Amino acid sequence: MSLTVVGSIAFDAVRTPFGERERMLGGSAVHFSLAAGFFTGVKVVGPVGDDFGEAEYDVLRKRGIDTSDIERVPGGDTFFWRGHYEYDLNVAHTDDTQLNVFGDFQPKLSDSSREAETLFLANIQPDLQFQVREQSQARLVGLDSMNLWIDTARDSLRRAIASVDIVLMNDAELRMLTEQPNLVRAAREVISLGPRMVVAKQGEYGAALFTADSFFALPGYPLEEVVDPTGAGDSFAGGFLGYLDSVADDELSDQELRRAMTYGSVLASFNVEQFGTERVQALTHGEINRRFEEFRLMTHLDTQPVELRSA
Amino acid sequence: MSLTVVGSIAFDAVRTPFGERERMLGGSAVHFSLAAGFFTGVKVVGPVGDDFGEAEYDVLRKRGIDTSDIERVPGGDTFFWRGHYEYDLNVAHTDDTQLNVFGDFQPKLSDSSREAETLFLANIQPDLQFQVREQSQARLVGLDSMNLWIDTARDSLRRAIASVDIVLMNDAELRMLTEQPNLVRAAREVISLGPRMVVAKQGEYGAALFTADSFFALPGYPLEEVVDPTGAGDSFAGGFLGYLDSVADDELSDQELRRAMTYGSVLASFNVEQFGTERVQALTHGEINRRFEEFRLMTHLDTQPVELRSA
Repeated sequence: MSLTVVGSIAFDAVRTPFGERERMLGGSAVHFSLAAGFFTGVKVVGPVGDDFGEAEYDVLRKRGIDTSDIERVPGGDTFFWRGHYEYDLNVAHTDDTQLNVFGDFQPKLSDSSREAETLFLANIQPDLQFQVREQSQARLVGLDSMNLWIDTARDSLRRAIASVDIVLMNDAELRMLTEQPNLVRAAREVISLGPRMVVAKQGEYGAALFTADSFFALPGYPLEEVVDPTGAGDSFAGGFLGYLDSVADDELSDQELRRAMTYGSVLASFNVEQFGTERVQALTHGEINRRFEEFRLMTHLDTQPVELRSA
Repeated sequence: MSLTVVGSIAFDAVRTPFGERERMLGGSAVHFSLAAGFFTGVKVVGPVGDDFGEAEYDVLRKRGIDTSDIERVPGGDTFFWRGHYEYDLNVAHTDDTQLNVFGDFQPKLSDSSREAETLFLANIQPDLQFQVREQSQARLVGLDSMNLWIDTARDSLRRAIASVDIVLMNDAELRMLTEQPNLVRAAREVISLGPRMVVAKQGEYGAALFTADSFFALPGYPLEEVVDPTGAGDSFAGGFLGYLDSVADDELSDQELRRAMTYGSVLASFNVEQFGTERVQALTHGEINRRFEEFRLMTHLDTQPVELRSA
């Protein structure tokens, strides 16, 4: 099985209460790939400039990620984002955005990217997401988006959403998209547009999975130190879809979906422990599966109800 | 076993986007008792005025709650609260507070209230909480508080907290109390003051339990309609401590604590389905234990990790 991701490849400058980095590898497609690469073969589609060098390619290649569909734009600069976080690490403050080569990005899938069984449309302009989805032969397609597109391209976003299987978005953005303050109703409304399921990412509170007839939720992993949340949502999506691609089952049983939710949560929890991709780059299989097991233990509720008291 | 709760008994006027009520039975001790009464014998300690009539006593008595320590102040009026919620049901807006007899409340425990094995100090002035705790012979004591006391009586609150076993507070208030933006650290700091454990109530996101060496979290029950969140935290505490009192085990195993968290979550989820105490008044044993089972199913993760991919 294999998985194609289309999204941003970036350099990020980030300051948090715990330190700062002036220039580090980032972007939704990068965070996603580094997580998904633990489960399946990943092809990255996205644009870079001349400043994207061998060191950056190597980070991806070391995880076995196929970089041949990264489009190098001669004379261009790679997408650059500068932001900071205050003590409330749930809110990213953007200080500078230089779209650079990303501003003219017209995704073109190679034959092998087209043929991947799974596709992730990371957060890019929704008309582009729709075009990519139309080019792809994937049997399982996931999509992320953000408030910018809800504000400026809502109809396009709804069309893109209608064409995919799984929507993975922040819970605040799901409420905003549907104008439904109740998350359960917001998720049902998204499902009514076409997708089979919705994953509501809830930051430190974890994540919830809604299908037409089931619900599953996992808390966030209890971390004493969150250094940099940038990319956590994409790492979640990478763990989630990477695992599902490796399962290669069109049915997607409840058990597989719950495992996928857990791997997503595991990867997101590691992502935030250090700046940018630093922690996920250094991750081992043992660390991932130990934390998977911790998630199982910390949510385990194998117990029957008791007899209640009568007044 | 038996349980004493000291807190407010009130009439509430509440408006939400889903309707309003001009005058209904409320108050932390009432919401707590109606939930805890499903598990154990409850004694309520709190003041009421002449306007608190047989109809109100009957609501409590029907659940088998001992009302003999309710202090009736001749010529006084019962505590009155008027508030409303916007579409963000997590935030209560107070429009009017008339403390009435609650303003001069000096809790006095009868012999039988003193002898209860479990005590819940609902949200009242922390010096009063401490005095009640000193009078009580309980082996298990829980405490709730709020931003008002963190702002105006922080040292008193820390002394009260140091004297109890379990702190149950909103997560935002735990952060505020400890000035720790990270919830795990905030909980650890509260435990370092003396309590054996901390329950962080997280509204629609559920609740998390921290002990010195363990963590457990449950999501909120996925409700399509939340009508009135008033009292949800007290219903949680009632289900949680009511169950623990019924267990009568000083050790409090992980399994018992997780069951208590689940019953707390079940009672809180019913509380918000209708105005005030309406839903919890009408609850049946079958409804409670069916939802307990739903919580088990929607968090169930009985699965092993898989072999990961090597690059």
